[in-house]
Amino acid sequence: MRRSLSGIQPSGVLHLGNYFGAIKQFIENQDKYEGFYFIADYHSLTSSPDPKSLRENSYNIVLDYLALGLDPEKATIFLQSDMPEHAELAWILSNVTPMGLLERAHSFKDKTAKGIAANAGLFTYPVLMAADILMYDPDIVPVGKDQKQHLEMTRDIAMKFNLQYEKEIFKLPEPGILESLAVVPGTDGQKMSKSYGNTIEMFASKKNLKKQIMSVVTDSTPLEDPKDPDNNITILYKLFASEEKVEEMRQKFMAGGYGYGHAKNELLEAVLEYFKEAREKREELAKNPEYVEAVLKKGAEKARKIAHKKITLVKETVGLLGNMYKK
Amino acid sequence: MRRSLSGIQPSGVLHLGNYFGAIKQFIENQDKYEGFYFIADYHSLTSSPDPKSLRENSYNIVLDYLALGLDPEKATIFLQSDMPEHAELAWILSNVTPMGLLERAHSFKDKTAKGIAANAGLFTYPVLMAADILMYDPDIVPVGKDQKQHLEMTRDIAMKFNLQYEKEIFKLPEPGILESLAVVPGTDGQKMSKSYGNTIEMFASKKNLKKQIMSVVTDSTPLEDPKDPDNNITILYKLFASEEKVEEMRQKFMAGGYGYGHAKNELLEAVLEYFKEAREKREELAKNPEYVEAVLKKGAEKARKIAHKKITLVKETVGLLGNMYKK
Repeated sequence: MRRSLSGIQPSGVLHLGNYFGAIKQFIENQDKYEGFYFIADYHSLTSSPDPKSLRENSYNIVLDYLALGLDPEKATIFLQSDMPEHAELAWILSNVTPMGLLERAHSFKDKTAKGIAANAGLFTYPVLMAADILMYDPDIVPVGKDQKQHLEMTRDIAMKFNLQYEKEIFKLPEPGILESLAVVPGTDGQKMSKSYGNTIEMFASKKNLKKQIMSVVTDSTPLEDPKDPDNNITILYKLFASEEKVEEMRQKFMAGGYGYGHAKNELLEAVLEYFKEAREKREELAKNPEYVEAVLKKGAEKARKIAHKKITLVKETVGLLGNMYKK
Repeated sequence: MRRSLSGIQPSGVLHLGNYFGAIKQFIENQDKYEGFYFIADYHSLTSSPDPKSLRENSYNIVLDYLALGLDPEKATIFLQSDMPEHAELAWILSNVTPMGLLERAHSFKDKTAKGIAANAGLFTYPVLMAADILMYDPDIVPVGKDQKQHLEMTRDIAMKFNLQYEKEIFKLPEPGILESLAVVPGTDGQKMSKSYGNTIEMFASKKNLKKQIMSVVTDSTPLEDPKDPDNNITILYKLFASEEKVEEMRQKFMAGGYGYGHAKNELLEAVLEYFKEAREKREELAKNPEYVEAVLKKGAEKARKIAHKKITLVKETVGLLGNMYKK
């Protein structure tokens, strides 16, 4: 079975854009690949989160993924910060990583251009990412467009290392081709994104979810008039309802006498129905932190079996004597 | 008892300059301080050593220090590469380390000026050094002049961290004031240094040691003539012989009829006598790699007790959930 690896940034509350843009595919892929999924909490430090948020977000994202169907029996789910081996490998790899490679990274250039204080973590982030990946020799790494350069850098670093030490220590990972997915519009019609404040969060309380859906922007056509059937509501509704249901809603809009408020209520019902199981499961999981901890512990143990072998091999290769993992 | 921490670069065969310039004091200090001594093999990677040399140098330097009198019952001696916690802490600290701080480091500027290919490891080296130090809250860190800036950077990084997380997590280390020691001249009269190829190595075979001492540069005054009593030989001889013996040699030089060859033979005898015990001990140790491994293992265990507590505290402080060391 081919191996796939994905890092998940614990950067906040998940929304429909995250789900239909990536998570849904992650979860569908878990039967096709030997999946490794890690919560990239070391990485989060580059943006200096407050500790309480980082802690909560890291924990919540595990709940979210498990509730959405990631199966710890199939996939290996772990915290990056449970794997000191990643930090070790990052240090070792940094010694074959030319400064120029890092200076060209978009993520660094973009963030410093936005005035985010440039710290060394932000700068060396791609090396840690390379370590995250190369540790597990994945066949594919599903990434969005914004991460494509980082994956190329990972390949560069792997090649440099293999060349310098004249051994094929690391497998060059292929970027996973994410199927082209419809961009999910936010409540204002722009791409749904936390930074635009236009998100609809599938695990929000019913009350908040309703508030978010009610805030979907529509025009001011009077109730009795016919309306554009391809408005923000129907576009979102398509993600949840059958073609017939969607067509029904479109007809009602075109006929007139059907208000946006009604449609939003139908959308809300559809969202709640779609995520019914996940929402219930998440509530159960939230009551059971021991289970979540056990999942992460087991995940770290599974990951460590591979990471241990790899870091031992790497340390031997570069001439380091130390090996705390040696029996 | 105050705690002292020293990193030892496994960069090659030790010589008299290393011994009288630093090691002698290290060893004398082991009764005054709770000493932590680590072989900085992670650091060595910044200069891309070939793996075999790194491995041998790391091992040999442990033999050297033990032979010279570092006592594993008193001091904690360990390999940096046995402590993944250092790499973890370095990653965490890199996120409070401004790029500007690293860009100002002499070591980076000097090496790149010399045309040494700038890799990210060389650039972030001071962050790893900060981690090495801050992990153990030492009271003093004995450093040479060339390392003084790094220690200041360590203090800066510690202050930044303590400030950002509003807690006194790290103690600010003081530079240890190394007593001003006579600079040891090499065989050519310049400062003894591996890079000048003018070293005298106390653990060389008798044959090689003789060769090195015979190569001490002198002038061409004929045997029977009086000679400058303060030549390279007497300067070196002072490190090993009593004042009376040195004065005796000076008188002989001034009287004439005393050749440099004779003096070099006396110097050789004095060096062999001075390091007699150490040379014998080193030979014994070299036959007993299990003992050396046991010393390093025990050292890593002692170091880990402190490193474990510290990295756990740091990870909790910054909001990382993962803790592989948690019971």
